[in-house]
Amino acid sequence: MGEPVRQALVAVIGGATCSHQEADWAHQVGRLLAERGVGIVCGGRGGVMAAVCRGAVEAGGMSVGILPGESTAEANPWVRIALPTGLGEARNALVVRCGLGVIAIGGGYGTLSEIALALKAGKRVAGLGTWDIDGVRHVETPQEAVTYVLGEVESGTLLDGN
Amino acid sequence: MGEPVRQALVAVIGGATCSHQEADWAHQVGRLLAERGVGIVCGGRGGVMAAVCRGAVEAGGMSVGILPGESTAEANPWVRIALPTGLGEARNALVVRCGLGVIAIGGGYGTLSEIALALKAGKRVAGLGTWDIDGVRHVETPQEAVTYVLGEVESGTLLDGN
Amino acid sequence: MGEPVRQALVAVIGGATCSHQEADWAHQVGRLLAERGVGIVCGGRGGVMAAVCRGAVEAGGMSVGILPGESTAEANPWVRIALPTGLGEARNALVVRCGLGVIAIGGGYGTLSEIALALKAGKRVAGLGTWDIDGVRHVETPQEAVTYVLGEVESGTLLDGN
Amino acid sequence: MGEPVRQALVAVIGGATCSHQEADWAHQVGRLLAERGVGIVCGGRGGVMAAVCRGAVEAGGMSVGILPGESTAEANPWVRIALPTGLGEARNALVVRCGLGVIAIGGGYGTLSEIALALKAGKRVAGLGTWDIDGVRHVETPQEAVTYVLGEVESGTLLDGN
Repeated sequence: MGEPVRQALVAVIGGATCSHQEADWAHQVGRLLAERGVGIVCGGRGGVMAAVCRGAVEAGGMSVGILPGESTAEANPWVRIALPTGLGEARNALVVRCGLGVIAIGGGYGTLSEIALALKAGKRVAGLGTWDIDGVRHVETPQEAVTYVLGEVESGTLLDGN
Repeated sequence: MGEPVRQALVAVIGGATCSHQEADWAHQVGRLLAERGVGIVCGGRGGVMAAVCRGAVEAGGMSVGILPGESTAEANPWVRIALPTGLGEARNALVVRCGLGVIAIGGGYGTLSEIALALKAGKRVAGLGTWDIDGVRHVETPQEAVTYVLGEVESGTLLDGN
Repeated sequence: MGEPVRQALVAVIGGATCSHQEADWAHQVGRLLAERGVGIVCGGRGGVMAAVCRGAVEAGGMSVGILPGESTAEANPWVRIALPTGLGEARNALVVRCGLGVIAIGGGYGTLSEIALALKAGKRVAGLGTWDIDGVRHVETPQEAVTYVLGEVESGTLLDGN
Repeated sequence: MGEPVRQALVAVIGGATCSHQEADWAHQVGRLLAERGVGIVCGGRGGVMAAVCRGAVEAGGMSVGILPGESTAEANPWVRIALPTGLGEARNALVVRCGLGVIAIGGGYGTLSEIALALKAGKRVAGLGTWDIDGVRHVETPQEAVTYVLGEVESGTLLDGN
């Protein structure tokens, strides 16, 4: 076959309702990741989650939704792989563990719990207009967020001074 | 776009070690489902889980592995979407909830717990050489297992007399 | 203080609805364990779960209910420690893990999943009128069930021929 | 019997390692709650968790430890009810859900995730030297923390101006 089997995933987190700005950022993040062959994993519902799934799917990429309830009916229409966990908010721990890194966009307390769990698990977390928590790399654009979590070389300089 | 976004999934369960017969059944189940555009979701490890993932991937299908530990390193090489839950055996409840129906192949106590959870959730369960539990449809071939869980019409007769 | 701090617990599993016989067995199991200073852990709801909690509490013992939902309102009135997990059926894995051993009384598919998870975890499982699964010690009385899971010496003979 | 069966519980969260100040606060919180007949629920390990359990038990109160691993061996010696969940960090969601309210003492990212989950679930959260998150009531003493989460009347004035 030649192609690698395993799909790389980045977790994208944010509110089930969101601003236009946040939805636009999320949509771009989904598309930028898809263009690099990287899929997204999220909570599978509305707002930021729907926008990032739509961005991924429109660019031919993968979207995984780890749902809180027991039915796929709560998934947004752009989730390709819908996983109804029935775990409620405990599923937040799964969302962040399933990504190579995490991009947080806006968000409330649910997003804050995911940021904390991601940092505890040692994941890179990029933030666009989200909680100001020590350890989060705050960025201005979807491109910077993607660059940071993927550890890509930016403008000829290695990230983190390495 | 035209194509539906959502990937249909069937859960395939069985032991992390298995007989040649069981591996062969699992491999065929993965392939048969892939040929119908249906992916598989499983526990992501060895034995029956590895065989069904290989069958799916070789036929161009989707394979999702819901892993008990915190790392994707324990996934078999044919898992496309590897989800490290960190939930231990509690992840069994997720595996069966994520399928439209369940195919059980051989298996020990872990598989028995999944059969029970699937029946409790009202899912169709087809069994190939597995636990003799009331509610499981015991079949002789991978083809019959697939036909049963997908509720397909068989030889001109509708399943379950409907 | 003198007294040991840690409360020994045995898991008692069975249906949320049950027969008079099953309720009577469960009630006796709760009492017998309490008389030995052993508490019970269960799913916290009705039927067998309510009867065993009542038996425990009436004899001055401890009862822990690991609930599927997010509210303590679903606990039966004899649960001393009510733990709303929000995990749905995935909480079954927790119930059996929290006991030194397991006593199964009657029960449907939920109970079967717990028997399987207990045997997988290497716990002793005594059964009163429950699923006929290899590894379960089928007994006739609550006394025998308690004796078996606690590994007590019975009539001068050691259990299991040791 | 007369006495109510159900044990009221408050969740106490904080790091598995902590300062002397934090341990002292936690110890006092455990004792103050026990004196009101309220037990504590925590993650069951060291640091703040051990100190609050010791405070509770020394005053004759209840301590529940919801452990991340599969064995009670990781519980601190002052946990009365030790519940090995095997859920890893996903157990954080359970700890906060099991309390009427939450008291956070110091802590790192794990504690932050619990604060966020508690606020999302609509619980009162009192903080002693912990993360500065909107919605947390920051207090100076264990007494104030207990007063706040229990919603007690303080100096003749109702809390929150009601």
